Parts: sequence; structure tokens; C-alpha cells
Amino acid sequence: MKIINVELGDRAYPIVIGNRAMHSKEHLERAIKGQSVLIVTNDMVGPLYADPLVETLSALGKTVQVHMLPTGEQYKNLETLNSIFDVLLENEFDRRTTIVALGGGVVGDMAGFAAASYMRGVPFIQIPTTLLSQVDSSVGGKTGINHPLGKNMIGAFYQPQLVLTDLNAFKTLPQKELSAGMAEVIKHGAIFDAEYFAWLEGNMGALMAKDETSLTDAIVRSCEIKAEVVAGDERESGQRAILNFGHTFGHAIEAGMGYGAWLHGEAVGVGMVLAADLSQRLGMLSAEEVARIRSVVQAAGLPTAPPPLGIDRMIEMMKLDKKAEAGQIKFVLLDGIGRAVIQAVPEDVLRETLQVCA
Amino acid sequence: MKIINVELGDRAYPIVIGNRAMHSKEHLERAIKGQSVLIVTNDMVGPLYADPLVETLSALGKTVQVHMLPTGEQYKNLETLNSIFDVLLENEFDRRTTIVALGGGVVGDMAGFAAASYMRGVPFIQIPTTLLSQVDSSVGGKTGINHPLGKNMIGAFYQPQLVLTDLNAFKTLPQKELSAGMAEVIKHGAIFDAEYFAWLEGNMGALMAKDETSLTDAIVRSCEIKAEVVAGDERESGQRAILNFGHTFGHAIEAGMGYGAWLHGEAVGVGMVLAADLSQRLGMLSAEEVARIRSVVQAAGLPTAPPPLGIDRMIEMMKLDKKAEAGQIKFVLLDGIGRAVIQAVPEDVLRETLQVCA
Repeated sequence: MKIINVELGDRAYPIVIGNRAMHSKEHLERAIKGQSVLIVTNDMVGPLYADPLVETLSALGKTVQVHMLPTGEQYKNLETLNSIFDVLLENEFDRRTTIVALGGGVVGDMAGFAAASYMRGVPFIQIPTTLLSQVDSSVGGKTGINHPLGKNMIGAFYQPQLVLTDLNAFKTLPQKELSAGMAEVIKHGAIFDAEYFAWLEGNMGALMAKDETSLTDAIVRSCEIKAEVVAGDERESGQRAILNFGHTFGHAIEAGMGYGAWLHGEAVGVGMVLAADLSQRLGMLSAEEVARIRSVVQAAGLPTAPPPLGIDRMIEMMKLDKKAEAGQIKFVLLDGIGRAVIQAVPEDVLRETLQVCA
Repeated sequence: MKIINVELGDRAYPIVIGNRAMHSKEHLERAIKGQSVLIVTNDMVGPLYADPLVETLSALGKTVQVHMLPTGEQYKNLETLNSIFDVLLENEFDRRTTIVALGGGVVGDMAGFAAASYMRGVPFIQIPTTLLSQVDSSVGGKTGINHPLGKNMIGAFYQPQLVLTDLNAFKTLPQKELSAGMAEVIKHGAIFDAEYFAWLEGNMGALMAKDETSLTDAIVRSCEIKAEVVAGDERESGQRAILNFGHTFGHAIEAGMGYGAWLHGEAVGVGMVLAADLSQRLGMLSAEEVARIRSVVQAAGLPTAPPPLGIDRMIEMMKLDKKAEAGQIKFVLLDGIGRAVIQAVPEDVLRETLQVCA
């Protein structure tokens, strides 16, 4: 097992990465102080992993309930969130209850926000089962749900007690989900570590073939990068925003197409290509670097061209993004591969980049 | 103007108490960093105070919207909360928006939870207009909504940037609401300050007649006590729970009767009499002290006898309380007036106290 510590003072916690990590009794026992555990999962992941996990937790003497959510981003809403509160209260689960998120980003975001809000906060453990959630959403404490007018608009910063990243979960991960997670992996290289980016270019074939050694290396390095950025700026008042590279475009595509039509990672894949194009137009990236980004996104099985949503609609959607302030959109751009900068962009240049959406 | 600082490190904030405090441009200007302000109020308080407040904020150059909620505890739910998010998003209010709660405890709890959750947290100002919210709910950062199975079950600890306690608001406060707030004032004396308790006994007539000097003194002292207790234990892991004196019984009465049937303060009034009785049965209070508590509760125009909910139902409701752990109820008891202790109680003794509910 490999352990990465997320350094957040009295909210610090370990990410434990390894085969069968979710059954690590030592870590579970240390993290779970109370008697009751609610496992929140979905109807795709639950049937694969919930029963063995219940067994492990029962062997530790815990009272365990499983709550299965419907699968998909379109259910990441207030109604589904409330179903978690219903189960907690119907079972009279008290404020020492630990909520365990077993699944991908949607499950983690909702279970995490439920943990942040139930009785004003109960302990929380993440067991991410998709590459996306392992390298991205399970690290850093962002939780929340969507609103019809915007993604992740309602939520909390709430850190887990523990993240268990189980490498066995790959074996059942659909290829489309692997691609979606790879978008965030590529992002980490692009914004923070040129050497890692080059390694990803050279190993994308092995990664997409689920080569265990390569995937483990990528997860570890990506978690390290994310943990380092988050530790420096927990509540995203500044530098943490570089993690949104590709996301301003990506969120607009997701919202414009209707949540669930595009996977988050797919939208981010295109978003990074658009952000690279914008960086080039502003003189910060060479044509060759833009081509490298496009190639590695493509090699990860991700789309590189946006849907024809129209330029005005894309801009309208971007102005609704959480990162916008007083209607001004700030973009994460690359000043060379491995170095991210955050800045506003003249609208005429933005419109040039968005010509491909027309 | 009198200023009390709530000492919570980087979450510290001032409570400003005085006539026309809500129009204090100096404090508003310092607290509001962004451009947009959403005033959340209700359809009883809004018509009295919203327009002048909009004027004051507009004079500071802010873009101001008012959102009026229906009045009453029965609307403190997920649906009403969501109406706040709807307004924020329909108006494209960004993450630098300040949410201002203008009203009593229900408005403050809901607006505060909306502020805690909108885009994972936006700035928040409390302008409490009832005695209850001025001395209790606006201080300490508890926010939240009710669930059909329990009061305040969903929420967050979220501190405001500023509390403006406007003494002019008394003039329009119904007598029933004055009584409800007085329950928390009495509580502060009972759990923390025997001298203050004695002062309240001697001045209850003047307080209930809305004598300005007495009321100001009571608000200031109560805010000081609450701020001191909260500063020592922000997230209620220990000593802060003494503020729940009378509340375990009170919550059970509120839940048992259906939210809105009894005012919170009325239920707490009875709850303190029951908790005093329980303390006496455990040898911690004299009969004379119990009589003093009953008398001052009565002098504040509050009920001193519980509704006939039945002993078993009361116990069932108490086990659902947030303070219960693994089905065990902990009570805040008095070891003499002015000194609170927290402990579990044998069920047979509890049942003796609850005979009056049979």
C-alpha cells in the first residue's frame, strides 16, 4: 500500500492506494470512531462491491446499512440528496455515524455533501471506484450537487477522514470511464509537471490497456499533485483554481448538452484542447505544444472537438460558471506545458477559439 | 453602538448592537466585499424593514435583490431553501455575493445554510429582528433546515461576517415573540451566570414591558455569554452543548406537536422547567431553585407545563435528537443555578419527570 498525506492541518487525512485497499481493516478501524456506518453507492457499483465491504465493516463490529442511488450525473440533485437524509433519519443514525462513499465522482460528491450537512457534519470516508474519482474528486474536499441552472452550484468544502483507493476497481471499469478519468490525469501533467506530461505521452497506450504498474504510477503522481495544490489553497481563494484547466469550457459543454449527455471527463478533454488553443492565441503556447495536448487527449480515447452549441450559448454558459465574477470569466491558461496561469481574456479572442462551436 | 467580538480566529466577527444598527454604513461597507447582495427575509418582516435596507445598501453602490420567504417554522425545509438557490442562480449572482438574513431565527437559519452551500460558501450577514434570534440563533454559526423526522437535522456550522442587532426592531415585535426570546435569555443566566439570573428575576416586568435600557442590557449580556461559550467550542464537541439546556425536552415537544404548533422558545421554556425538575430528582437543585426557575419562566409569559404527548412518545422523540448518541440521551442539568453539567440520566428518573406529560 502507498500512502499520500493531504496536509490540511487539523483536517489532514491519508489517501491509501493499493490492491484491496477498501478492505484495509487497520485504516478503517482507525478512521471510524462511532458505531453506525452508512455506505452510499449506486446501482452499478453497489452490486459489485457493497456486500464484501459490509462484511469487512461488520467484522469490525459496526452496524452497517447500504443505500443505493440511481446511477448517473442526472441524479446528482436535491431529491437524491434528500433520499440519503431519509435513510439516515429512518435508521436513527446519530452524529457519530460515518458515511462511506463507494463509487465514482457523483456518489462521492453527494455522499460527501450529505456527510457535511447531516446534523451539521458527520465523519466521511471516500472509496473511489473510477479513475476520475481516484485522481480527482475524492481528493480535496469538494462536495455538492447540481442545480438545473448550473453544475455543482450547491455544496460544501468538507474533508474526509480517509480515502481508500482500491486498484482492484479497475478491472471492472468501463473503457469510457477510464478515458474520462484520464482527462484529469492529463490535466495534472499539463498544469503542474511537464515531465509527468511527457511520461503520459509515452505511456498512454499502456495506461489505456489498464497496465497495472503504469496505472498505479499515474494515480500516485496525480494524487500527489492534486494533494499539493489543495493543501496550498483549501477553499480555492487563489492557486487551487489552476485545477480548473479545461473546466470552464467543459462545464459549459456539460450544461449546454444537459447533464449526463457528456461525461465530465469527455467535456474536460475537449475543454483542455480549447484552453490550449486560447493559450496559443494569446502567445503563451506554441502550435507544437497545442498539437501535443490534442494528441494525448485523443490517445486517451477522448473527443477533441466540441459539440455545435453556438458561440453565444457557450459564452452564456461560461458566465454562469462558479469561477466567473461579476460576469467576468477567468480562464486557466498554459504558459508552456507544466505551467498554469489564471487570467481574464478579451472576448474577441475567446470568440475566435469558439469558432469551432459555431 | 455596543460591539461584541466573537473570538473565532480567522472566522471571528463583530456583533453590533444599537438603534438603527442595520443602517450602519461603516460596518456594512467593511463586511461586504462583492457587488451583489441578496436580502433574504419573510413576508412579515420584509414589508417593515426591507425597503429602507435596500436603500442603505444601494447608497453603498451595491446591486440588491430581496427574496421573501413564507413566514413560519413549517417552511424551514428543503423546498424553501431551494427557492433561495433559484433566485441566486436566476440572477446570476456570483461567489462574491453577500447573503443578508433579515428576520428571526427561521430566516437566519435558512439564509445561513444557503450562504454556506451556494457555490460552496458565500459571505453572510445576520440582521436578527426578534429577541430570540438576537440573543441566540444569530450568534454562533449554526444554520440549517428541518426534516420531517427531526428539527435542524440538515445544516452547517457557518459563521457570518457581521451581525447587526437593531434595537428598533423591538417596537414591532409581538409579545408572544418577546416571550419566546426571553426563554433563551433566562437560559443564559441559568447555565452560566447566577448573578445575571437574579437580575432577570428582578427585571422581568420591565423586560416584558419592552423597557429599552433593560432590554439592551439583557441582549448585551446574553450575547456575551453565548459568544464566550461558542468561542470555546465552535463545533459543539463538548462544552457548547450546555446551550442546549431545556432543548432536549423542548425539541421533543416541538417535534411531537408538529413544527410550528409551539414556538421554539415556548417549548424551551417548558423544557427548562422539566430539566430543572430532573436536576432536582438527581439531587443537584433544591426545590426552591426549581421554583425560582418556574417563576421566572412564567413571568416571561411562557408555558411551564408540557402538552400531554405521553411519556413513551416524548422519550422516542428525544432519542431522535441530534444530541443523542447510540440511542443514549444526554441531558444538560443544573448543579445549582448558574452551573450546567452534561450527563446521561437513568430512564426511571427521566420517566418520573415526564409523568406530567402522561
